[in-house]
Amino acid sequence: MSRLRVHSLAISLDGFATGEGLSTEAPFGHAGGRLMEWFFPTRTFVEASGHEAEAQGPGTRGIDDAFAAASWNGIGAEIMGRGKFGPQTGPWQDDSWRGWWGEEPPFHSPVVVLTHHPRPDFAAGETTFLFRDASPRDALALATELADGLDVRLGGGATTIRSFLDEDLVDHLHLVVVPIVLGRGVRIWDGQEGLEGRFSVEATASPSGVVHYLFTR
Amino acid sequence: MSRLRVHSLAISLDGFATGEGLSTEAPFGHAGGRLMEWFFPTRTFVEASGHEAEAQGPGTRGIDDAFAAASWNGIGAEIMGRGKFGPQTGPWQDDSWRGWWGEEPPFHSPVVVLTHHPRPDFAAGETTFLFRDASPRDALALATELADGLDVRLGGGATTIRSFLDEDLVDHLHLVVVPIVLGRGVRIWDGQEGLEGRFSVEATASPSGVVHYLFTR
Repeated sequence: MSRLRVHSLAISLDGFATGEGLSTEAPFGHAGGRLMEWFFPTRTFVEASGHEAEAQGPGTRGIDDAFAAASWNGIGAEIMGRGKFGPQTGPWQDDSWRGWWGEEPPFHSPVVVLTHHPRPDFAAGETTFLFRDASPRDALALATELADGLDVRLGGGATTIRSFLDEDLVDHLHLVVVPIVLGRGVRIWDGQEGLEGRFSVEATASPSGVVHYLFTR
Repeated sequence: MSRLRVHSLAISLDGFATGEGLSTEAPFGHAGGRLMEWFFPTRTFVEASGHEAEAQGPGTRGIDDAFAAASWNGIGAEIMGRGKFGPQTGPWQDDSWRGWWGEEPPFHSPVVVLTHHPRPDFAAGETTFLFRDASPRDALALATELADGLDVRLGGGATTIRSFLDEDLVDHLHLVVVPIVLGRGVRIWDGQEGLEGRFSVEATASPSGVVHYLFTR
């Protein structure tokens, strides 16, 4: 049975998954890189990004890396909101933006991009981006078919994840609470009163200062 | 040097320290007892409340109790908002309400109750309640004098604590994040953007499911 999984969604203490003022230069807005500082030193990130030469070494293998690495196990497709694919809004001016990830994106699988403004699908390396104006349920049906028996990762952002939580489609939710107070941005918790009733919830603190939460069912 | 300390302030994952619909029967509103379920089994609560006979035993001595017990070390006075003293709002109808705690409140020290509607001070057991319409800074000056060299506890609720954080008067902030999403109520984080810059922040998860955060300086 294919499951829908969210991994490594970083939020501030006050629940913001991204800040205000998103742009090409500031994909997390005023949050900057602070929500992902726990992630950058991990071996999983270092290897995926090819930054080993620049990093202090081959990357950490501790608690944060254990959670980061789990994101890639048994995933056959991803669903993401248009806001994760790029900072543009409204109709596409042209098709020149091909995502943040260069010509070999780390997904190595089909990626369904949810957008009210579809554009032609394209392939980059082993990743295929499909642009669909679809409901959460229909997007999941498509991604599940593309995943061919493996699980589907729900990649974010927060608004997209909330829309899938609203439909009770999420089976696994890994949140990383970063000890900062952002004050503004997009909240993951809006409209989620009583969420804990549908999941087992466990938490563990990492020496890096973040707290990993797993919501599983 | 006397310090101002907040202890055992329980909040939901979405940052609410209390729910909606507060009343005499529902001091936490729709949150019910859920924010304090981690606390009730502790030896500190069992001993303070005299509920030992009703409890399963003498109370737990684990992580949650360690944090609960720290609340009482070296405290010489407390400051609380009127909302912690009682659920009433506006002018007092009479002086019959004497708090939630009966004739031997657990404070055993002066308690400064912040209210725009002062009423006569009174003593109950070893506790004296003083009602003052004072700024955070003036209230702290009074409580510090009353504490006679010991620390001052800031007892809540969330609105009161925020007003002291706004003035940068808090030296120690212990929060307990309970794994529930309340959705509505009074948020501790409102207006606190960048709070982490003024404190060291540490977190530890308890087997009970809560996460204890310490903001210290």
